[in-house]
Amino acid sequence: MTFTELRNFLESHDDYVIITHRNPDGDTVGSGFALWNILKNMGKRAKVVNCEPFPARYDFLYEGYSAPEFEPETIIAVDIADERLFGEELMGYAGKVDVCIDHHISNKYFAKETIVDGKASSATLILYRFVRETGLPINDIIAKCIYTGLATDTGCFKFENTTPEAHIAAAELMAYNIDFANVNRRMFDIKSRGRMKVEAAVKTNMEHLFGGKCAMICVTRQLMEETGVDPAEFDGLASIPLESEEAIIGITMKELEKGGFKLSVRTTDKADASAFCRQFGGGGHIRAAGCEIAGSYEEVRGAVTKAVGELFGE
Amino acid sequence: MTFTELRNFLESHDDYVIITHRNPDGDTVGSGFALWNILKNMGKRAKVVNCEPFPARYDFLYEGYSAPEFEPETIIAVDIADERLFGEELMGYAGKVDVCIDHHISNKYFAKETIVDGKASSATLILYRFVRETGLPINDIIAKCIYTGLATDTGCFKFENTTPEAHIAAAELMAYNIDFANVNRRMFDIKSRGRMKVEAAVKTNMEHLFGGKCAMICVTRQLMEETGVDPAEFDGLASIPLESEEAIIGITMKELEKGGFKLSVRTTDKADASAFCRQFGGGGHIRAAGCEIAGSYEEVRGAVTKAVGELFGE
Repeated sequence: MTFTELRNFLESHDDYVIITHRNPDGDTVGSGFALWNILKNMGKRAKVVNCEPFPARYDFLYEGYSAPEFEPETIIAVDIADERLFGEELMGYAGKVDVCIDHHISNKYFAKETIVDGKASSATLILYRFVRETGLPINDIIAKCIYTGLATDTGCFKFENTTPEAHIAAAELMAYNIDFANVNRRMFDIKSRGRMKVEAAVKTNMEHLFGGKCAMICVTRQLMEETGVDPAEFDGLASIPLESEEAIIGITMKELEKGGFKLSVRTTDKADASAFCRQFGGGGHIRAAGCEIAGSYEEVRGAVTKAVGELFGE
Repeated sequence: MTFTELRNFLESHDDYVIITHRNPDGDTVGSGFALWNILKNMGKRAKVVNCEPFPARYDFLYEGYSAPEFEPETIIAVDIADERLFGEELMGYAGKVDVCIDHHISNKYFAKETIVDGKASSATLILYRFVRETGLPINDIIAKCIYTGLATDTGCFKFENTTPEAHIAAAELMAYNIDFANVNRRMFDIKSRGRMKVEAAVKTNMEHLFGGKCAMICVTRQLMEETGVDPAEFDGLASIPLESEEAIIGITMKELEKGGFKLSVRTTDKADASAFCRQFGGGGHIRAAGCEIAGSYEEVRGAVTKAVGELFGE
């Protein structure tokens, strides 16, 4: 589907449901509300849905948002590579998506029409190309949504996936009132007190193995209870071990409620996270992968450090 | 001095000393070695100096750097607003600087010629304008130096001082082999084990006052001794308190060797750090200021919390 065809499609349909992915991030929320505003400007009815309520930190993206009651007719998925990411509550939409707009190379082409570019830094960047190429109007809130997705997915233009196009889009979006410094403060700097406590705890307990080439943190049920912090604050710690200066592989072990551990593995360009996790039946990307391992803390830690030793030929 | 005049000046002189500021950061080091490479390409002798050795984290900016022995003839200062920032060891150059290239609005015009733009996101961005406008050649290392200064001073395009020009320059510099993701990892993500320990300790001890509107950390001599970490790792903690989600004012109290405390104050757009510090005989910028207060921990903490209470009308 070309952008012109997408514009024609959007103009000739109505009553849109825009699906965003579970564990919502700035790119899926930004894409959802950018599209909602685009549709609103076309005079269409639309709502943005997620399998859970959006975290409050994204509320600046849906100021002034409201959705009238209507019978869904047209279903769009944004920043979603796989229907499994709808979350259980929205599984009723599986098999019914009309258009998917995404930037994951792993997209499963589950929708009737898919607009995907694995080289785009964010899904919002694809929406930006769409509005620019088809001459649709951009306003402050659309610009802010697009910028937020772009900043979120590139780690504020820090990661390898940042392209010249991403920088140029950011420069152009600054012509609108997007208050990007506050967006970035909300996306990258601000932490709840609970989160700060959690990060301090795991950094205090971080292990440095093999001369520091492997940094490992472990979140046990006991630690979660001791800190007395909402369990959700223990999500997304995986990037922390690799902050250690000598680390090549960073491992986050998180004890599961059902027993056993979930491993999140991150690597620099000197190791393959995906290959590492495949040994344990997991997988993922070359720099970020995961797996689950059954067993006690001692058993899992033993198996993991053995595998790390083999990785370094030690 | 126009850029054309600067080019003529550089071409008609030789034996350059390029001064970078004390407590060197990515912008002064990036500016220094960008200029060194520009001069090298002109066939000139030059060296980059600092009052102390450059920290190892910047070594990728001076790979292949060497300076022959020569009698200094032409003195350039980069990213330096005031001669006091030369550091004691380089004070002999005070009053002798031929050209200062800087982006601080507070520049003291201490050099014979000053090229300053307070709106430029970094000093390297001014050098970028210079090479672009005068048609001087850019190579990978010059591009990397310019990018590093730009990324450092904008917090990787995160802060208010990021301009559309900064993004466009970044996009253009990506045409060179600058390995920006590794530059950013080095500048923003990687921490020594000691630093990680220090941050964990201050986050564990962080106080949240006035319903969280004030977040405060305190680095006592005792804490410094207990952690057993190089005292230098305790520098630059000032941005941490403001990571707390409700904080409007973030205060870092650091006990001085001579007794008393150095305060570093950071504020969101809802408070004036400079006005706060002026009460204690200090000063600075509206969002970042400092002061020194004599007294014991209890005395200083008392005076500070009283002043914070007044700020909030409590």
